[in-house]
Amino acid sequence: MTESELLSTVMKMLPANDFVVAGAGDDCAILEMGLGGKQLLFKTDAVVEGIHFTSSEDPERIGRKALARCLSDVGAMGGTPTAALVTLGMRKDLSLEVVRGIYRGMGHLASTYQVAIVGGETTSTPERLVLNVALLGTVPRDRAVLRRGASVGDALFVTGDLGGSIEGKHLDFEPRVAEGRWLAEGGWATSMMDLSDGIAADLPKLLEASAVPGAELLRSALPISRTARLRERAGDLARPAVVAALCDGEDYELMLTVPRGRTVALVDAWKAQFPSVPLSCIGVLTQRNGIFLKSPEGLRPVVGGGYEHRA
Amino acid sequence: MTESELLSTVMKMLPANDFVVAGAGDDCAILEMGLGGKQLLFKTDAVVEGIHFTSSEDPERIGRKALARCLSDVGAMGGTPTAALVTLGMRKDLSLEVVRGIYRGMGHLASTYQVAIVGGETTSTPERLVLNVALLGTVPRDRAVLRRGASVGDALFVTGDLGGSIEGKHLDFEPRVAEGRWLAEGGWATSMMDLSDGIAADLPKLLEASAVPGAELLRSALPISRTARLRERAGDLARPAVVAALCDGEDYELMLTVPRGRTVALVDAWKAQFPSVPLSCIGVLTQRNGIFLKSPEGLRPVVGGGYEHRA
Repeated sequence: MTESELLSTVMKMLPANDFVVAGAGDDCAILEMGLGGKQLLFKTDAVVEGIHFTSSEDPERIGRKALARCLSDVGAMGGTPTAALVTLGMRKDLSLEVVRGIYRGMGHLASTYQVAIVGGETTSTPERLVLNVALLGTVPRDRAVLRRGASVGDALFVTGDLGGSIEGKHLDFEPRVAEGRWLAEGGWATSMMDLSDGIAADLPKLLEASAVPGAELLRSALPISRTARLRERAGDLARPAVVAALCDGEDYELMLTVPRGRTVALVDAWKAQFPSVPLSCIGVLTQRNGIFLKSPEGLRPVVGGGYEHRA
Repeated sequence: MTESELLSTVMKMLPANDFVVAGAGDDCAILEMGLGGKQLLFKTDAVVEGIHFTSSEDPERIGRKALARCLSDVGAMGGTPTAALVTLGMRKDLSLEVVRGIYRGMGHLASTYQVAIVGGETTSTPERLVLNVALLGTVPRDRAVLRRGASVGDALFVTGDLGGSIEGKHLDFEPRVAEGRWLAEGGWATSMMDLSDGIAADLPKLLEASAVPGAELLRSALPISRTARLRERAGDLARPAVVAALCDGEDYELMLTVPRGRTVALVDAWKAQFPSVPLSCIGVLTQRNGIFLKSPEGLRPVVGGGYEHRA
């Protein structure tokens, strides 16, 4: 049973009410609660010892990651994060020093993004540390960028570099909050999401939400990270860098679609706004079914295989 | 290290911002986000297999409990719940049938309270099922009832019956949402919280928040549950019913303080409004330090020993 199979099963069982603009199925839920010109964003997410971080990891990085993942989701809607709540599941013999470190890492990142942490529940989870964050944010009314707005012919963009996140970026990535907000405010993106499971697994979600049949990616345009290239060269992993860029999870970069006629203008405006953050046009959405990678050798299908969390 | 020791350590490390009216330390956080005449309530909480429910428990009751605990906290502030997010930590080999049951139980309760469930994340927690709920609610501006408003001389009330919740009520309790909202709207309560750890453990928190030195409880006024009395009679537990009423956790009833001059009016109005829900005046807040139980035998100190979650 994969995470998406599971979610699609339970999603039908979730009651709604008049406040819900968008429920399960996007990076955040959107609620219309009568906040002047704004809507609320609402997100929850957990990291688990041995799954999302190792037992020997620096507690500050663990706390940071738990919050940063939620910030990334708010960024991917074009929103601004506001306040977070934390549930800490403590394994037996967890020391106060570790707890302090987790909160220090989380608190530091929260301060940087002017996010308040308004509560910290604890519970016992004897075998593993479990850290759940719930995050509230806001977005100007009807300006949130969903997964479902893409059309055939739109260009596909990603921020940053992809692949090899396991070497450290999965803990230390900078959530693309300012970038996502700027993209939403400028009305650049027709759809957007953050890359948590890799393009090969995440792009199908965006296509499905937008009812677009397929996409063609340009191999030479993929922003492969230096880490992924080094890992390929190291050789012992039998994982070509291009596969890492497509299939590694936890990049926490933005993936977005842009009307073809606006791509040049976007690239120019982006360079002026975020000179140190790469933005790459990596392909185009197609009427043809499926995702394909174009290279000098021809067109090859990109099969799933991105990092899908197995439940 | 107890939960309160832990929380008091980390609470100092939590960054705030201009949106925060009340952060960690009450049943919910309160946020001022510009919602017309309302403020937001924000709460998160988790239940863990083997801690808050047994492995053989009916999944519907597990799902119900996880949400009901958060509803109880919103009720204890005088608020109205709006929307919830769920994180399901799945142990190995959890069946789809169990997942469905959990969501069915949660969804049913959510519908009853007109709460939307706007997302359902899953993650892997190999050894135990962990179910985290984040809940949003609203409360009319500045009408939320906090723990900190009580004064010496106020009368102490509780709803419902106390003790023996482990026999089933801890799963099937009805969160006091309507009651809490009515108490807040009428301006009856100077302070309020829900009883999750038992009076002996929870009353000290209310007293501390309100800077009131102590309380005197009347033994004959304690609304001891039938279950607690039966358990005492069964005899094999060596736990007098009065101790169960004071120290058992998970009653999820409201505990509130009321100015002495309004107690009679409250009891009358309550009976008209909630004829089937007991409301008991069980004591008074005192200048004298500590919590004491008054009975024909005299005055005896109530020592901690309520159910404190050990982390």
